[in-house]
Amino acid sequence: MKYPTSLLTLIDFFRTFPGVGTRSAERFAFHLLNWPEDRLKQAAHHLEHLHEKITFCSKCACLMDRHVACTFCSDPMRQRNVICVVGQVKDVYAIEATGEYRGLYHVLGALLSPVDDFGPENLDLECLRKRCREDEITELIVALDSTIEGDATSLYIKECLEEEAIKISRVAFGLPMGSSFESTDGGTLARALSGRVNF
Amino acid sequence: MKYPTSLLTLIDFFRTFPGVGTRSAERFAFHLLNWPEDRLKQAAHHLEHLHEKITFCSKCACLMDRHVACTFCSDPMRQRNVICVVGQVKDVYAIEATGEYRGLYHVLGALLSPVDDFGPENLDLECLRKRCREDEITELIVALDSTIEGDATSLYIKECLEEEAIKISRVAFGLPMGSSFESTDGGTLARALSGRVNF
Repeated sequence: MKYPTSLLTLIDFFRTFPGVGTRSAERFAFHLLNWPEDRLKQAAHHLEHLHEKITFCSKCACLMDRHVACTFCSDPMRQRNVICVVGQVKDVYAIEATGEYRGLYHVLGALLSPVDDFGPENLDLECLRKRCREDEITELIVALDSTIEGDATSLYIKECLEEEAIKISRVAFGLPMGSSFESTDGGTLARALSGRVNF
Repeated sequence: MKYPTSLLTLIDFFRTFPGVGTRSAERFAFHLLNWPEDRLKQAAHHLEHLHEKITFCSKCACLMDRHVACTFCSDPMRQRNVICVVGQVKDVYAIEATGEYRGLYHVLGALLSPVDDFGPENLDLECLRKRCREDEITELIVALDSTIEGDATSLYIKECLEEEAIKISRVAFGLPMGSSFESTDGGTLARALSGRVNF
């Protein structure tokens, strides 16, 4: 394709985005070509200074605007004795969207993964342990992926913090909402059966 | 959602993209958050200077790198007596991708549209007429959308340039590749029937 070089660079930029193929990347690039210069400059300025404006809470590692208090840690309406442990920063927003949780968070940033050579020595649970003690946390909800990495990390957290006097639970695994037995895979069914609850 | 302000701005930026909803915009924003600062700065620099690097050919109005000759007009291997008239700059690349056309282009930039108050007085066909005369063009292929605007503009081009000694044709309309009669809409079928060819 005989695209001008600058357009190709833009297309390549968008092609690195998750779920974006060549066609979508081309559409995005042409879309930006129609933008007036001042709007492009604004977007460019925002991209350039993204890391300066955004930072991570030193306590829970959630995203926060720099020079502003963490929206979660500083919220007086939240339950201050429960911590939900998540793998990535964006998992926090997925949980917030449910509206079912009103406690605090703790973002690990990564899960144990032997394939990626990421072992227990790389996972800093000491700060979580310290937080639990200092802030008198009584419950820890482990909300990690339903994957080998998520399972391994959850187990490791449980082992590490077992001696603390806190209740540790892990989110339930089972059939997703609206699913039928017919369309559910064996692994999910097995977990749904072993995790059955009285009703 | 309690996103930091800078993240929200980024999400809003991506939400203006064609076919991108809130969920995709969020994924894109989180994707960029993981980028190192120098890569973000590079992308920002590119966005900021996009309009300085890209321009339109003064002859055919195709996109081109500034300070470089137009890849179409300057290509000695292209047929120099045929012009394909397209509506938008990106239509050129759609046609190029077919590999079926080796002539020159002429980008109108817009189609006649009474709804948007865009009438014949806004459509500059004089430069096309001048080009046809000066460059001894013998054939004009009108490749405009199969819409009311495309039909109106095609007809207007035909009327305006009819007196020139050039062959004017319009791309064929009919059943798309791989489609069945059952799944084809009435308008397309009607056009396919009226445009039937001997075989």
